[in-house]
Amino acid sequence: MAEEIKRTSKKAGLPPGSLIHVGKKHSDKVKITIIDYDKDNLDENTYESVDACEKFVDKPSNTWINIDGIHQVEVVEKLGNMFAHHPLMLEDVLNTHHRPKMEDFDDYIFFTFKMLGIDKRGGIVNEQLSIVLGKNYVISYQEREGDVFDILRERIRLGKANIRLRGSDYLMYRLIDTVVDHYFLVMENIGERVDQLEEEVMSEAAGDATMKKILKMKRELISLRRTISPLREAISSLQREGSDLIEEKTYAFLNDVQDHTIQLVESIETYRDVLSGLMDMYYTTISNRMNNVMQVLTIIATIFIPLTFVAGIYGMNFEYMPELQYKWAYPAVWALMILMVVGMVVYFKRKKWF
Amino acid sequence: MAEEIKRTSKKAGLPPGSLIHVGKKHSDKVKITIIDYDKDNLDENTYESVDACEKFVDKPSNTWINIDGIHQVEVVEKLGNMFAHHPLMLEDVLNTHHRPKMEDFDDYIFFTFKMLGIDKRGGIVNEQLSIVLGKNYVISYQEREGDVFDILRERIRLGKANIRLRGSDYLMYRLIDTVVDHYFLVMENIGERVDQLEEEVMSEAAGDATMKKILKMKRELISLRRTISPLREAISSLQREGSDLIEEKTYAFLNDVQDHTIQLVESIETYRDVLSGLMDMYYTTISNRMNNVMQVLTIIATIFIPLTFVAGIYGMNFEYMPELQYKWAYPAVWALMILMVVGMVVYFKRKKWF
Amino acid sequence: MAEEIKRTSKKAGLPPGSLIHVGKKHSDKVKITIIDYDKDNLDENTYESVDACEKFVDKPSNTWINIDGIHQVEVVEKLGNMFAHHPLMLEDVLNTHHRPKMEDFDDYIFFTFKMLGIDKRGGIVNEQLSIVLGKNYVISYQEREGDVFDILRERIRLGKANIRLRGSDYLMYRLIDTVVDHYFLVMENIGERVDQLEEEVMSEAAGDATMKKILKMKRELISLRRTISPLREAISSLQREGSDLIEEKTYAFLNDVQDHTIQLVESIETYRDVLSGLMDMYYTTISNRMNNVMQVLTIIATIFIPLTFVAGIYGMNFEYMPELQYKWAYPAVWALMILMVVGMVVYFKRKKWF
Amino acid sequence: MAEEIKRTSKKAGLPPGSLIHVGKKHSDKVKITIIDYDKDNLDENTYESVDACEKFVDKPSNTWINIDGIHQVEVVEKLGNMFAHHPLMLEDVLNTHHRPKMEDFDDYIFFTFKMLGIDKRGGIVNEQLSIVLGKNYVISYQEREGDVFDILRERIRLGKANIRLRGSDYLMYRLIDTVVDHYFLVMENIGERVDQLEEEVMSEAAGDATMKKILKMKRELISLRRTISPLREAISSLQREGSDLIEEKTYAFLNDVQDHTIQLVESIETYRDVLSGLMDMYYTTISNRMNNVMQVLTIIATIFIPLTFVAGIYGMNFEYMPELQYKWAYPAVWALMILMVVGMVVYFKRKKWF
Amino acid sequence: MAEEIKRTSKKAGLPPGSLIHVGKKHSDKVKITIIDYDKDNLDENTYESVDACEKFVDKPSNTWINIDGIHQVEVVEKLGNMFAHHPLMLEDVLNTHHRPKMEDFDDYIFFTFKMLGIDKRGGIVNEQLSIVLGKNYVISYQEREGDVFDILRERIRLGKANIRLRGSDYLMYRLIDTVVDHYFLVMENIGERVDQLEEEVMSEAAGDATMKKILKMKRELISLRRTISPLREAISSLQREGSDLIEEKTYAFLNDVQDHTIQLVESIETYRDVLSGLMDMYYTTISNRMNNVMQVLTIIATIFIPLTFVAGIYGMNFEYMPELQYKWAYPAVWALMILMVVGMVVYFKRKKWF
Repeated sequence: MAEEIKRTSKKAGLPPGSLIHVGKKHSDKVKITIIDYDKDNLDENTYESVDACEKFVDKPSNTWINIDGIHQVEVVEKLGNMFAHHPLMLEDVLNTHHRPKMEDFDDYIFFTFKMLGIDKRGGIVNEQLSIVLGKNYVISYQEREGDVFDILRERIRLGKANIRLRGSDYLMYRLIDTVVDHYFLVMENIGERVDQLEEEVMSEAAGDATMKKILKMKRELISLRRTISPLREAISSLQREGSDLIEEKTYAFLNDVQDHTIQLVESIETYRDVLSGLMDMYYTTISNRMNNVMQVLTIIATIFIPLTFVAGIYGMNFEYMPELQYKWAYPAVWALMILMVVGMVVYFKRKKWF
Repeated sequence: MAEEIKRTSKKAGLPPGSLIHVGKKHSDKVKITIIDYDKDNLDENTYESVDACEKFVDKPSNTWINIDGIHQVEVVEKLGNMFAHHPLMLEDVLNTHHRPKMEDFDDYIFFTFKMLGIDKRGGIVNEQLSIVLGKNYVISYQEREGDVFDILRERIRLGKANIRLRGSDYLMYRLIDTVVDHYFLVMENIGERVDQLEEEVMSEAAGDATMKKILKMKRELISLRRTISPLREAISSLQREGSDLIEEKTYAFLNDVQDHTIQLVESIETYRDVLSGLMDMYYTTISNRMNNVMQVLTIIATIFIPLTFVAGIYGMNFEYMPELQYKWAYPAVWALMILMVVGMVVYFKRKKWF
Repeated sequence: MAEEIKRTSKKAGLPPGSLIHVGKKHSDKVKITIIDYDKDNLDENTYESVDACEKFVDKPSNTWINIDGIHQVEVVEKLGNMFAHHPLMLEDVLNTHHRPKMEDFDDYIFFTFKMLGIDKRGGIVNEQLSIVLGKNYVISYQEREGDVFDILRERIRLGKANIRLRGSDYLMYRLIDTVVDHYFLVMENIGERVDQLEEEVMSEAAGDATMKKILKMKRELISLRRTISPLREAISSLQREGSDLIEEKTYAFLNDVQDHTIQLVESIETYRDVLSGLMDMYYTTISNRMNNVMQVLTIIATIFIPLTFVAGIYGMNFEYMPELQYKWAYPAVWALMILMVVGMVVYFKRKKWF
Repeated sequence: MAEEIKRTSKKAGLPPGSLIHVGKKHSDKVKITIIDYDKDNLDENTYESVDACEKFVDKPSNTWINIDGIHQVEVVEKLGNMFAHHPLMLEDVLNTHHRPKMEDFDDYIFFTFKMLGIDKRGGIVNEQLSIVLGKNYVISYQEREGDVFDILRERIRLGKANIRLRGSDYLMYRLIDTVVDHYFLVMENIGERVDQLEEEVMSEAAGDATMKKILKMKRELISLRRTISPLREAISSLQREGSDLIEEKTYAFLNDVQDHTIQLVESIETYRDVLSGLMDMYYTTISNRMNNVMQVLTIIATIFIPLTFVAGIYGMNFEYMPELQYKWAYPAVWALMILMVVGMVVYFKRKKWF
Repeated sequence: MAEEIKRTSKKAGLPPGSLIHVGKKHSDKVKITIIDYDKDNLDENTYESVDACEKFVDKPSNTWINIDGIHQVEVVEKLGNMFAHHPLMLEDVLNTHHRPKMEDFDDYIFFTFKMLGIDKRGGIVNEQLSIVLGKNYVISYQEREGDVFDILRERIRLGKANIRLRGSDYLMYRLIDTVVDHYFLVMENIGERVDQLEEEVMSEAAGDATMKKILKMKRELISLRRTISPLREAISSLQREGSDLIEEKTYAFLNDVQDHTIQLVESIETYRDVLSGLMDMYYTTISNRMNNVMQVLTIIATIFIPLTFVAGIYGMNFEYMPELQYKWAYPAVWALMILMVVGMVVYFKRKKWF
């Protein structure tokens, strides 16, 4: 979080549209993958130089230009100029800490949001994905190489797939849909960890560490909501305002993605409620433990303190203490003490302390 | 909850409209019940093959096709194709973890929501019900066989019933109304359990288990709200947007269902408030118990610790302790001790500790 | 609450418009009071049979038909048929657990809400009042006989009263206004009890019972808000949508009732805030008491435990304990002890424990 | 609060427009001050009878009629009839517990809200001010005489003041503006008391009394918000709906008052947040004190209880206790005890209890 | 906060548009910097008298008049009169405690909001910036001299900069953008302090001081939200309502600033959630410490109190105590005591107190 603000603050004072990469640099190379297809033809290639994209400008077939790595500002800039994109949009592409949003520039639509995944240690990683949908082309910018869209490429390669018959708007939808499907995998991971936390809270092992885990997960959920919730807004504003770039029948599909984001946001809210419940549970557990400890202390002290007093009395050294001489005094004191214990046990029973 | 997300996440990477059953398989067979009726005629039959539905497409009389069991994807697919339903809609029918919603496809209206019931052990079970309302037909998809709609079938069989005079939109309303009526049975069950919990919290038996029950019920209510609340939205969006498939006078009835869902959602909110109150009550009870325990401890300790000290003094073995020799010293010490006890009892009385 | 849901759930499975009385039966008889009036004439009668109403259908003078007792379904049904009311509306009249609402059926307007009162033991009782406003008539359904509207009847009997000059819409307004005025009496009762609770929390007598009273009152307020808040919505939707049945100048009066309901809802919210404050106050009081108890215990224990230890030392029976022989040893031990006490008192003073 | 509801409930059962004074009677006399002015002329007089107002009806110059004291119902009634005001409006003028509101009666606009002030003991006092703006006249009703508007009168007397050039709408604005300016004085007083409370919470003196003050101030803020927030709505609805009685250029001024009320409401919210923070602070302080007390008790008890046990052992009177005879035994026991103390001190240091 | 209200309350009773400086006086001089530029020409000068501005009224080139220091009311007044600005607007310029807002006066647009910075001791300082955008001119009022806009001036001096080609609306955007960029620096500072606080809460050093820091930061965040949130509204109302003074293509840039303010407000909300989490964490830590202290006390007391009782028994001085004579009695008592200790240790182990 602090991270995110920090990097954005670096840009203070620069003129708008200054193209500066804000984020981590994941590799040296930039990989450009271009798939150009229509119903009958398919042309797929990987390039290292952005100049190769030139010929796809204004080509009537669908072109999907995928950029892996956005740390080379000049690549983004060149491509942007080729397709006449607004400098502010390119700035957003380069700023990997941007809030998810949709912006309609009439000739093209800009979508930026996060891809989520689980890394090897179980943490949630996010990567920014920016999509530009133009007439007959889709440009997607990723921070690093990944295999998320491989299934989609396979589909395109298959001649008969539905995707080959549809326009670039459908391709954009498929990209968004694939990312949202991955959100469910992340939510599944969260769900499992919430279940584990629940078991931990109920167990004897609950302690400070449990509390820290609950708070950490709460923050993860806040962060997830900040990732997913604006995407929902973005899609719904797209549906509301419409665009010439999107065919009528694609809206049903966008509707479907919309449903999924609503379900995700609701799940996040539910998990937050559950975590609040776990915290309440944890507080009660602590209170109850303390209560039990206090009861044991009280029972022990309440029983033995008076007995010790009695023993103390007959440990005094006064010369004139008539009781000390009687033969039956010692057993009598024992009898008295046993009576006191029985009395107090009865009292505690009545108070339900046992 | 985790369950729900998990199963949905299985679909990641598949193209939209891929028909895959998401949910539990409740039986092997799929039972297809078709009731075809108008004012004068009634034709009721049960089939095992979906092909039997063919002849009812475009039939002018009202046709109610009820499918029990949606795990056989090909049944749903075939029926969908017969009636020219959108693949995304069929996908939603098959995904039993879908959020309740209404979608208007112009030629037909799609409704998906949950039926709720109480199982033998008192738990709430839910089953997805999807309804497609078309011109002259209603198709309902249930996860398993059930007797919820038997009363409705009886009504249709009765020649003079109102339902025979009305169109398929009225049938759809009756299906929804029947399900919502069952929600009240579930709410009644919840209400009784809340009352029991209240008694438990007020009783001496309140403990960690009570707290767990409160939290569990809170989660059940969250889950119920997630089930009922979107249904309310669905019906109200139907009323707002209107449709050629629904007669003017049916809206008054939908209004009525709408009222019921509002009442249900308000009841859920009230129960949640009540449960929060019970938690507050429980915390106070714990605090008070602790307080009482501490007071007993303090009274005992405060009375006996000084007395024991006095006894200790005269238990010392100094050779020169003049008090030890006086005959009246021992009774004097007793008198002193009794005075101390009286003094402290007065003090505690004034502090209202008794 | 559970009550309310329970009775509604009884209707599950029945066709809509099935006329069944849901609620308590307060008496055997049904009393029908009809006042028919215009500027110059007044005709007031009490009947036991509903057939008497027949002649007032379509009569141009204002007719107020008041039904005390709605448990005889056939009375409601007959009257409904006479005036051509919708079966769903009659169902709502009979269901005494219905949420307050307004429904505009074009030819008549239906209003259902609760009358509130204080019973002999200080509890809040509610009774459902349903009003149907038609052209030249008002029908009011009450659960039982009552004297709430007697003042209103007196007004009508007075020849010169404003009410005689106005239409049936003004009569409906006066009925609603009278009920809302009674809400203020109930709120006054609540206000007094909140003030008493406040005093109780501040006093020494505050305990578990106080907490229970606070929680009970919180629930009463939730229930009151559920009664009053929908009435506000109902009136405001009437104002918003308008109706031919209501004269322009009556709206100013409805506005006034609207203002009152807003004030009532705000008062409820304020009382809820006050009760939350009382709960906080109560928690603090408990914490403080516990704190004081702990301090007394600590002071006593901290002073006497070391002294007792010193006494214990010189109570040991070692043969070789040189101190025991010195004549000044006993006074010296006393001096030491007094010094210790002084030291600790100074320490506690500095810690502000006294 | 209870007060307010109580007095309003007195009116239950009366017909609407019944003119009854609801509130305290501050003096016997009613003082009527009339200032009639235009650009060139000024006529200022004080009357005791309302008949003097007759001649100002329909006079083209601006007339400001100020009524100090509204307990004489006939004064309000006569004046209302003179200017043809609606009975419901006059009812609102007389009910000093009315919620602030604006009502547009086409020919005149009615504004009712509260003037706030600080009394000698530092409490907040409020007085109802009702303003009627008509064509060429403003009538203001105050509960008692006051000097709040003296500055405004001075301004009018000054020939060149802006106010002389403008219409009665500008006068109404100036009245409202003057009252809102006084709200800031009240908020300043609140601000100072919040600052004092903050210091008190941080100091050693914090106790139950502090808590009560926090809760009391919270209630004052709730009550203030109920006073100011509806005024904001009133002004904004005036701006939204417009009126022929208000000149275009006066709206900029109303805008300005609107800004002030927003700032006031925001300040109230901020103070409420601050008070919640103070309560949290106070709870922590209590918890910490308790913690410290417990630690002292634990340290003392943990050190001396074992030592006392050791002393108890060698205070036993068994005939055969070999240790008692050894000459080095007594110093050895001392050494053991010192060792025990050192061990425990080290343990506590490691636990950071010192 | 109290500060802010106090100063505003000073104006009570004055007529609107009275020009009075509300705020601190930062220096004696007022510095007037005028940059007049178009595509080809640039004229930059610093003046001490406001008369120098006269010639720039109605000049077709872009004029940026920057006023450092607004305590000389006559400067603001003269300049306002020159450009025919509304007195209420000038009043807002002079009131440095004004809420951020945008107001459209048709011929010019008024923007007032806060510049934020970090002072040497790490505190957040704010300064009011008011901007008036007219046809071909921008006037900016700052409270004191600063170097925030130096980068911007550099840009203008560079002949080829984009800013030279655009109108005064673009200049206004750049001023706002520069200020918003500085907000990120402040948020970065906050983020770092939140991270430090988090570490502090997790460490052993957490105490009352930590709590105070959390509460202080919470208040800072409330205050920040009050600064930034209205700016967001201001910009969005500008976009919604539009203005002839702003070119179509400048809206894309305002959109961008809007995005930044949304991100800032979201960050503030997130930090508030994080701080609430830290408070929960802190409470748990305190509870746990208390728990541990109690357990140690209970273990020590529970073990030694019974042992001391046993020792007390055999310290009694009864003449007839047969056990005292037996040779094996003393070791037997030791054995008994050891057994008791072992028993209790086993009990505590089972209770998981170790």
